[in-house]
Amino acid sequence: MAKKEKIRRPKAEAPKGFRDYFGAEVTERKAMLDAIAKVYHLYGFEALESSAVETVEALGKFLPDVDRPNEGVFAWQEDEDAEWMALRYDLTAPLARVYAQHRNDLPTPYRRYAMGPVWRNEKPGPGRFRQFYQCDADTVGTASVAADAEICAMLADTLEAVGIARGDYVIRVNNRKVLNGVLEVAGLSGDDKERERGIVLRAIDKLDRLGVEGVRALLGAGRKDESGDFADGAGLKDEQISVIMTFVQANETATRILEKAATDEISLGFGGSNQIRAMYAADPQTQRPAGGDSVSSGYRSTVTLGHLGEIVGTSIIGLEGVSELKQIANLLEAQGYGPDRIVIDPSVVRGLGYYTGPVYEAELTFDVQNDKGQTVQFGSVAGGGRYDDLVTRFTGQAVPATGVSIGVDRLLAALTAKGRIDRTPRGPVIVTVMDRDRMADYQSICADLRKAGIRAEVYLGNPKNFGNQLKYADKRGSPAAIIQGTDEAARGVVQVKDLILGAKLAQEASLEEWKENPSQSEVALSDLVPFLQKLLA
Amino acid sequence: MAKKEKIRRPKAEAPKGFRDYFGAEVTERKAMLDAIAKVYHLYGFEALESSAVETVEALGKFLPDVDRPNEGVFAWQEDEDAEWMALRYDLTAPLARVYAQHRNDLPTPYRRYAMGPVWRNEKPGPGRFRQFYQCDADTVGTASVAADAEICAMLADTLEAVGIARGDYVIRVNNRKVLNGVLEVAGLSGDDKERERGIVLRAIDKLDRLGVEGVRALLGAGRKDESGDFADGAGLKDEQISVIMTFVQANETATRILEKAATDEISLGFGGSNQIRAMYAADPQTQRPAGGDSVSSGYRSTVTLGHLGEIVGTSIIGLEGVSELKQIANLLEAQGYGPDRIVIDPSVVRGLGYYTGPVYEAELTFDVQNDKGQTVQFGSVAGGGRYDDLVTRFTGQAVPATGVSIGVDRLLAALTAKGRIDRTPRGPVIVTVMDRDRMADYQSICADLRKAGIRAEVYLGNPKNFGNQLKYADKRGSPAAIIQGTDEAARGVVQVKDLILGAKLAQEASLEEWKENPSQSEVALSDLVPFLQKLLA
Repeated sequence: MAKKEKIRRPKAEAPKGFRDYFGAEVTERKAMLDAIAKVYHLYGFEALESSAVETVEALGKFLPDVDRPNEGVFAWQEDEDAEWMALRYDLTAPLARVYAQHRNDLPTPYRRYAMGPVWRNEKPGPGRFRQFYQCDADTVGTASVAADAEICAMLADTLEAVGIARGDYVIRVNNRKVLNGVLEVAGLSGDDKERERGIVLRAIDKLDRLGVEGVRALLGAGRKDESGDFADGAGLKDEQISVIMTFVQANETATRILEKAATDEISLGFGGSNQIRAMYAADPQTQRPAGGDSVSSGYRSTVTLGHLGEIVGTSIIGLEGVSELKQIANLLEAQGYGPDRIVIDPSVVRGLGYYTGPVYEAELTFDVQNDKGQTVQFGSVAGGGRYDDLVTRFTGQAVPATGVSIGVDRLLAALTAKGRIDRTPRGPVIVTVMDRDRMADYQSICADLRKAGIRAEVYLGNPKNFGNQLKYADKRGSPAAIIQGTDEAARGVVQVKDLILGAKLAQEASLEEWKENPSQSEVALSDLVPFLQKLLA
Repeated sequence: MAKKEKIRRPKAEAPKGFRDYFGAEVTERKAMLDAIAKVYHLYGFEALESSAVETVEALGKFLPDVDRPNEGVFAWQEDEDAEWMALRYDLTAPLARVYAQHRNDLPTPYRRYAMGPVWRNEKPGPGRFRQFYQCDADTVGTASVAADAEICAMLADTLEAVGIARGDYVIRVNNRKVLNGVLEVAGLSGDDKERERGIVLRAIDKLDRLGVEGVRALLGAGRKDESGDFADGAGLKDEQISVIMTFVQANETATRILEKAATDEISLGFGGSNQIRAMYAADPQTQRPAGGDSVSSGYRSTVTLGHLGEIVGTSIIGLEGVSELKQIANLLEAQGYGPDRIVIDPSVVRGLGYYTGPVYEAELTFDVQNDKGQTVQFGSVAGGGRYDDLVTRFTGQAVPATGVSIGVDRLLAALTAKGRIDRTPRGPVIVTVMDRDRMADYQSICADLRKAGIRAEVYLGNPKNFGNQLKYADKRGSPAAIIQGTDEAARGVVQVKDLILGAKLAQEASLEEWKENPSQSEVALSDLVPFLQKLLA
């Protein structure tokens, strides 16, 4: 037997680390992006869409996560003499290029939002893809911390606009200058202390996961992690560790101070103890402070910031940071953003090396099950901060800027987890084909439905097997199928199969109910539109 | 003097052939894409978003325009052993890969729409960019020409939905099988006639530009173009040229036949001459046929198709093509899509080599000025057709498919040319900063406006120079500026500058009017929202 010649066929596969999004996956994300854009626009930000491709030179070395230096870009070169080009890895590097290029034509400050895919040439993992969406808003060209405060307020509004309820999120604000002040006080500000600073920042960033003792160990001799590997510590002295830990726990300390003030154990010294006492008086039902999260941000931030001021006492940069945080807290308080939405929190570090001032992070505080079945807080969905040096590499001038980036896929996952997205597929009404010579009639029925705004289509597969037509309607999640044979056509009627009711009956109905077939109705063609409008309502 | 050390700075430039889109450029395109998606969805199509990156193997060699074989893709390889990857150059090649990959999970037929950027590695030119948007809808898995007819109807609905008025566009439908039949009759179907076929197809495609004599010359000995270059002809004999030219002019012939029938010079033989006569009776005002474009598609297509049937008389494939066109014409007529919207037109060729059946093209018929100041029809904005072989290379099976692609940028340009897009920039209300210590108050005013849905922002630049704040408001296209100094704050009022009226007065007002300063009003803070709502209405 002659060997059959084998044809080499291309693999029908998305490249590794890339995926396809179908139907509702696309439209749900779009609806969320539209809601975000609406808030950004309301705040005066203008849309910007730069190209997906940049020169590698323009992108620079600003890969955002210093923890993973191997993280890379997708880059290519036309030929040996040509310039290297690459896909953008975020929306901030292109903003820097755009602002530097068009700065003479753009208003100052320049407020822009951008949304779209970015690409990372990193090892893909479960749920980690090499193309994903970002959604950013940045204010370029102002040093005013009012810009930072505004972005925090906008972030709160945005989360609520997409469907995260108040109480299910908190925006934590810190300032890199405070952190730098603390490092200075702890004697870690010298050029020779870069290694120690790195370990300290990463340790603080992991407070949630490692707890106070874990962080303390990393600041000192080091610690063994769950897998048994030993992570080297920063090797700090006890006094140094003490400074940093006091700082990290400043927020908890503030809470304790407020609670004590409520029971009159201490005096706050700036008045208001009575008010705080009223808020913190234990609720007899819950045994939790009655004021709950509605404690005035004025008191809370005053306490936290007073405490931070003490810690950085001798550091100019640290005091500058505390002062900026104070301004931000005041601005937010004036607009009614209390600690139920936005809090000053010294444990926020943010990974990015380029932040120079205020940093902020939005966390979702409700519980979800993680991969291992453990109950955990959903965690971070957005973050940002001030990065005054990003444009400098193009122009030589320092242009202050601050901005936020929303992790679109994380936020979408959160909305799905909270059941805020209706996952019931709603397909089109299917006009079935009983008689293929009457295709024009079926198309006309369909055209009339569409004119009335009803999503509809004629079955366009092989109509021979009617069962296949209904299977198709089922697969599409169709709410109804329209059937018109020769007899019905002669009488000017159609049969309407209510597929939602039909599916329900198939699961629940008794034989009697089933026989009555309440899910199928004969409807005059002239009544079809109102009949379906009622069925779809 | 010591030579200053020169710092090498990256160029702040988008890569050659790429550009940035600002503000309304982004939101207008988005609004148009939303309107298109709404119609596609109404017709039962589901969204699909595949990744921008594909393996080069999966993309294959389907670059769409055979006229430009140098056209390429942006491609790269991680390292020497890795697979080549590339940016998609259209949305059809990814659809073929997606369908082949997921065919067991997708419904049959699979109706999907997709919109997004595609990338072409070709020489950029004026108005021609290397990244641009496409917006496609395809039905995969049905051989029924009802699918083709439906897409033509949907295309008409889409153009009207985005703002192209009926009468300003026409969708021309042809069938590659008819064309193949004509080539067969003209003796050009052999494998050895590929060169001739290519010249013939390209010549027909240029009918609009070259006219009948130009096309005839290209079919024969060739012709000198405007630049004096000589283009080789197909070298056909007179009989061959005659067959093809009869075909190309079949639509004009049909019009002539209908006009003659209207004046009773000839009999159509299928009844209806009276009706046609009524429609074509000259309108006394315009001296044009009174029926104009509303001539029943039934008569028109019957005449055109009868004529085409005569031309392809001996070719099986040709007759099949005529029969398919007849079905399409009937289906469209039944849904009320007359020749004022969709016509059978034998001169439509479409560049793509892979079309195998019906082809269609949407042309905008209104006049615009071209680059040279000449008045020309706007021309093609969308096109598509049946391409039954595209999935075969992955699976070995022929999967019939048909679809349309809208040239998003062209359509946007058309809407702009027709004035259907309001280009007046509408920026946010600007709350100015008179006293930088009162930033919290200004932010509060702003927060109240936003809560009422009024787009607003506080000026975040350096507030020292008040003129700069108003210049900023002007640059943003702000409708109003809010001013509150210490005096106004004490009285609980603000000054509102109506910047639209102000700009108008600056151009038109007399000195008297100017002195009255009607563009500035003092408004109680509590009345600010309704005052601005009225101003913005």
